[in-house]
Amino acid sequence: MKRIGLLTSGGDSPGMNPCIRAVAREAYARGIEVVAFRRGFAGLLDNDFMILTAEHTSGIMQKGGTILLTARCEDFKYEEAQKEAIKNLFKNGCDGLIVIGGDGSFRGAQAIAGRGVDVIGIPGSIDNDIYGTDMSLGVDTAMNNIIEAVDKIKDTASSHERTFIIETMGRGSGYLALMSGIATGAEAVIIPEVRYDLEKIAARLKDRYRQGKVSNIIIVAEGASTAYQVGRQLSRIAGIESKITVLGHLQRGGSPSAFDRTLASRLGSAAVQKLTEGFSGCMVGLMKSEIKLSSFDTVFNNKKELGPKLIELAELLGK
Amino acid sequence: MKRIGLLTSGGDSPGMNPCIRAVAREAYARGIEVVAFRRGFAGLLDNDFMILTAEHTSGIMQKGGTILLTARCEDFKYEEAQKEAIKNLFKNGCDGLIVIGGDGSFRGAQAIAGRGVDVIGIPGSIDNDIYGTDMSLGVDTAMNNIIEAVDKIKDTASSHERTFIIETMGRGSGYLALMSGIATGAEAVIIPEVRYDLEKIAARLKDRYRQGKVSNIIIVAEGASTAYQVGRQLSRIAGIESKITVLGHLQRGGSPSAFDRTLASRLGSAAVQKLTEGFSGCMVGLMKSEIKLSSFDTVFNNKKELGPKLIELAELLGK
Amino acid sequence: MKRIGLLTSGGDSPGMNPCIRAVAREAYARGIEVVAFRRGFAGLLDNDFMILTAEHTSGIMQKGGTILLTARCEDFKYEEAQKEAIKNLFKNGCDGLIVIGGDGSFRGAQAIAGRGVDVIGIPGSIDNDIYGTDMSLGVDTAMNNIIEAVDKIKDTASSHERTFIIETMGRGSGYLALMSGIATGAEAVIIPEVRYDLEKIAARLKDRYRQGKVSNIIIVAEGASTAYQVGRQLSRIAGIESKITVLGHLQRGGSPSAFDRTLASRLGSAAVQKLTEGFSGCMVGLMKSEIKLSSFDTVFNNKKELGPKLIELAELLGK
Amino acid sequence: MKRIGLLTSGGDSPGMNPCIRAVAREAYARGIEVVAFRRGFAGLLDNDFMILTAEHTSGIMQKGGTILLTARCEDFKYEEAQKEAIKNLFKNGCDGLIVIGGDGSFRGAQAIAGRGVDVIGIPGSIDNDIYGTDMSLGVDTAMNNIIEAVDKIKDTASSHERTFIIETMGRGSGYLALMSGIATGAEAVIIPEVRYDLEKIAARLKDRYRQGKVSNIIIVAEGASTAYQVGRQLSRIAGIESKITVLGHLQRGGSPSAFDRTLASRLGSAAVQKLTEGFSGCMVGLMKSEIKLSSFDTVFNNKKELGPKLIELAELLGK
Repeated sequence: MKRIGLLTSGGDSPGMNPCIRAVAREAYARGIEVVAFRRGFAGLLDNDFMILTAEHTSGIMQKGGTILLTARCEDFKYEEAQKEAIKNLFKNGCDGLIVIGGDGSFRGAQAIAGRGVDVIGIPGSIDNDIYGTDMSLGVDTAMNNIIEAVDKIKDTASSHERTFIIETMGRGSGYLALMSGIATGAEAVIIPEVRYDLEKIAARLKDRYRQGKVSNIIIVAEGASTAYQVGRQLSRIAGIESKITVLGHLQRGGSPSAFDRTLASRLGSAAVQKLTEGFSGCMVGLMKSEIKLSSFDTVFNNKKELGPKLIELAELLGK
Repeated sequence: MKRIGLLTSGGDSPGMNPCIRAVAREAYARGIEVVAFRRGFAGLLDNDFMILTAEHTSGIMQKGGTILLTARCEDFKYEEAQKEAIKNLFKNGCDGLIVIGGDGSFRGAQAIAGRGVDVIGIPGSIDNDIYGTDMSLGVDTAMNNIIEAVDKIKDTASSHERTFIIETMGRGSGYLALMSGIATGAEAVIIPEVRYDLEKIAARLKDRYRQGKVSNIIIVAEGASTAYQVGRQLSRIAGIESKITVLGHLQRGGSPSAFDRTLASRLGSAAVQKLTEGFSGCMVGLMKSEIKLSSFDTVFNNKKELGPKLIELAELLGK
Repeated sequence: MKRIGLLTSGGDSPGMNPCIRAVAREAYARGIEVVAFRRGFAGLLDNDFMILTAEHTSGIMQKGGTILLTARCEDFKYEEAQKEAIKNLFKNGCDGLIVIGGDGSFRGAQAIAGRGVDVIGIPGSIDNDIYGTDMSLGVDTAMNNIIEAVDKIKDTASSHERTFIIETMGRGSGYLALMSGIATGAEAVIIPEVRYDLEKIAARLKDRYRQGKVSNIIIVAEGASTAYQVGRQLSRIAGIESKITVLGHLQRGGSPSAFDRTLASRLGSAAVQKLTEGFSGCMVGLMKSEIKLSSFDTVFNNKKELGPKLIELAELLGK
Repeated sequence: MKRIGLLTSGGDSPGMNPCIRAVAREAYARGIEVVAFRRGFAGLLDNDFMILTAEHTSGIMQKGGTILLTARCEDFKYEEAQKEAIKNLFKNGCDGLIVIGGDGSFRGAQAIAGRGVDVIGIPGSIDNDIYGTDMSLGVDTAMNNIIEAVDKIKDTASSHERTFIIETMGRGSGYLALMSGIATGAEAVIIPEVRYDLEKIAARLKDRYRQGKVSNIIIVAEGASTAYQVGRQLSRIAGIESKITVLGHLQRGGSPSAFDRTLASRLGSAAVQKLTEGFSGCMVGLMKSEIKLSSFDTVFNNKKELGPKLIELAELLGK
């Protein structure tokens, strides 16, 4: 192996930059050049790339986002585009490709794996909804972003005796909302995995009011509802007025946390190793504290679960 | 003077706690007891108070919000309520009162000043819309909260090549939006003080797109519009899609910044001094780096301006 | 079980407070009262305690340190003191005890376990040197404290072209230094687990100088050397001048990270459950992402290793 | 004016980057090119420069340090070097020069002012010891760095009941130590401006011990003593043991605070304006909230004072 391709795809997540750095360093150490494509699969189609040098990856460890840029690329589902991509990889002398991204990105990765190019995926997504890894790159940083924001809101909540509703990201997954609910002691968490009952939540809040506890935090996963909608419903059902924060994209920014940096370093390094060992069509992940490979098929055909224990724990601690 | 009352009123702001601490310490040093009322004027009406001890104010320097709680008190505009308040102050042996809050709170303060009780105000509001002080308590912390959030969003903006619209607080004032626009290099700032022209903003964004600069930050002061509305208009006028963040109450939380802590310490200490010197019906503020007194009338009858230079500067630096 | 004792012992670590909260909440939910002793085993000897109420544990999730205070208690190694402790537990109606702390604290815990009192330990120590858990409470927060500090120093290092030596905690363990070395891309890491060769490090730095890379970060674990000593040696051996930072106790402060809060919540809840199930003389830990019990003997008789892969990774990424 | 030179000199400070950005933007808007020299006066001697483009200054607002690098340049005090510098400025077509730095840097600036080149200084130094400006670039960020560190140490101090001694920077000035003492409620502050009496401090600590307050923070300005020395003296005089933190260069790193970014923007813009208006041999500063010019002579011949009120305030609030 003399050259490998590298791209970041889908939503960006903090940890992508330290991962790019680790891929580059592991590759250098093995005498392999890294052809880094810009804007994910779009750059692969346009043959828009740079050869990563030490200078490119210097000082990026602490930066959020991805220096390679990322984009969604609708075209890539078409056979024709995939052929073009493989042609570009060949043209640049790449016999391997590393894709940092989420589920959707791995579909693209799988489409070209085994057609003369070996492909390894690295899970990058703040939603933590990728099967085959306990944590994806960016999840830990997003969690810290959320709890810092909620902590600030709690300052004002407890000064003012009010109900606050905070909307988190996560697409179909309630992970960020559930875990940040545990980590901030939220009074209620609304996630897509559990049928929620606003009447019951309203009753609990009213009960708390009677006990003199009149500041409340409710965290809503975007996959379950919106903060505005929950606010309107609470007002209608129970006359409880609330203040809204939509955290939005600040969740996916910021300097990567220590955990994300070390995870990124380990996964980036492992991905290069696995490529050189001849693996393809699979993802490196962190399973039970160890680096493990899962085939893309395993990743696609299994659903990551939150686990009933964590849901109970959130319920218990939020009371 | 043997005893003075103290309350925090209106919206809470970071800096209120270090200010409470400074009032308490300055008063102790002069042999004065501090009767701290809970929930602002509401607590004064209900005679809900505690005598501040060193223990109450220990470890509060770094805490956002206010340990005295705050609330808006509609009743306080009525003569009857004001009389009740004065009665309670007398009953507790207070011949002075310190009110930490904003404009609205000072109206209440003025209503009881000069009726046997001396009253001094301390400006606490993240909006920086109080005349008579260059900076109110909480403004600097709010500014830092905003720029941290915008910095995080910029990570993802520059990875993704997108337009982001961020809504800040400030009520009728564009201060937070304008200054955070300067401090983050936002491409456009929309504030109530300046008539904004979305066509022009859209044209500038399109121009930037043509130059290959495809990530943009627009900051909207809540007093001028909402982020959602600006987003819809940009989409309609120019087909520019954008992502929205509503920062909400996270702006007014968090550990007070160094500036807010030292300002709070200076103003809290000065307020007690001024009371003992016989002043009443006025506010202590920071004017041109010095502690100055302004009568409540001066505070009410003047409008704080942003200054044309800062607006030009934001325009220039955002280009 | 109607009542259990609780104490924090040894060095404090961020995560102790959310753990206290989780113990309290899990116990309430089971109708168990928590007798919280102050200052670790010293408070147990002096019978200095409070019955934890919801008010005590409200708002402590985000606070560093421990509201129960902690201390080292030399006396506790004596039989007599241990008897006194058991007497106090009985007097207060406690048939169980939870000890949050490190190795040393668990020695005390073991001494009283099985003498009529069931005892469960929870690992709290920033050093990550406790066998039986992949992560102890406080390690993740300490890691984030360190990388934030190193990131700041890198700003000035890269502006100035200088060598900086930063000393981290960890007692006999190099975990914090090694992992923060990986997470910050440090040029060299000096840890007690690996014989270090300053000549080699000096040669590498000189090599980097020749390549025009003239800012360097060296992280020294306190268990291997001191920053000042390494600085003097580098100066003598190679004429390389350096700037020193001794991070000291700022490493163990700060609001607990998201990881530490959720880990603390899980371990605290599990410890109460295990007590009610009749377990004693063991520690709850996180092993391969799951909550596991290890007997104190297992904890004492095994040494936690860093793993050769991580050491290689640090070497590779720092080049 | 078609071209101006720009350099950062002396110790780096957070705020230099946003200032570089503002200089560049203000200059572009006036049709002026900016010739940016690397490594301060050393780069001016070596004619090591780049023409600043929008790309250079994009995304630097939030970065600590200086993208232009900085260094001390001993040679520059010699006439010969100064002539060389002027020759290089001429060769590059610069009829103006902006120097961002401290006192020492302005000596170099003055040496070339009025010899065919107009020179304006911008105060950048975390020490806040430059006469002619209330705040220098970087001071506010350094203050926030310090108080965050002290807040973390207070967590552990109040868990453990101990005395902590923290050493801050500031060279000959006690500003950082004094103001961070006020902002953290330190029990004692040791600064070069005030003769300190360790016997008195020890007596106060012992008095606090008797009242049951057994955690103490002492802040020492490097200009007055070292943390280690104060620790040894306290131990000898009063048997008080303490823990040491030497904050070192982490004080001058980190993303610039909101205040530093807006100050940097205003000063950078003003410096270009003043150059175009024909001013030379002076510094732009912030005096009483307004941008003011002071001649270098005024800057050199006056000493910035802390003011007795602040010293009293620290004394009062720390009791």
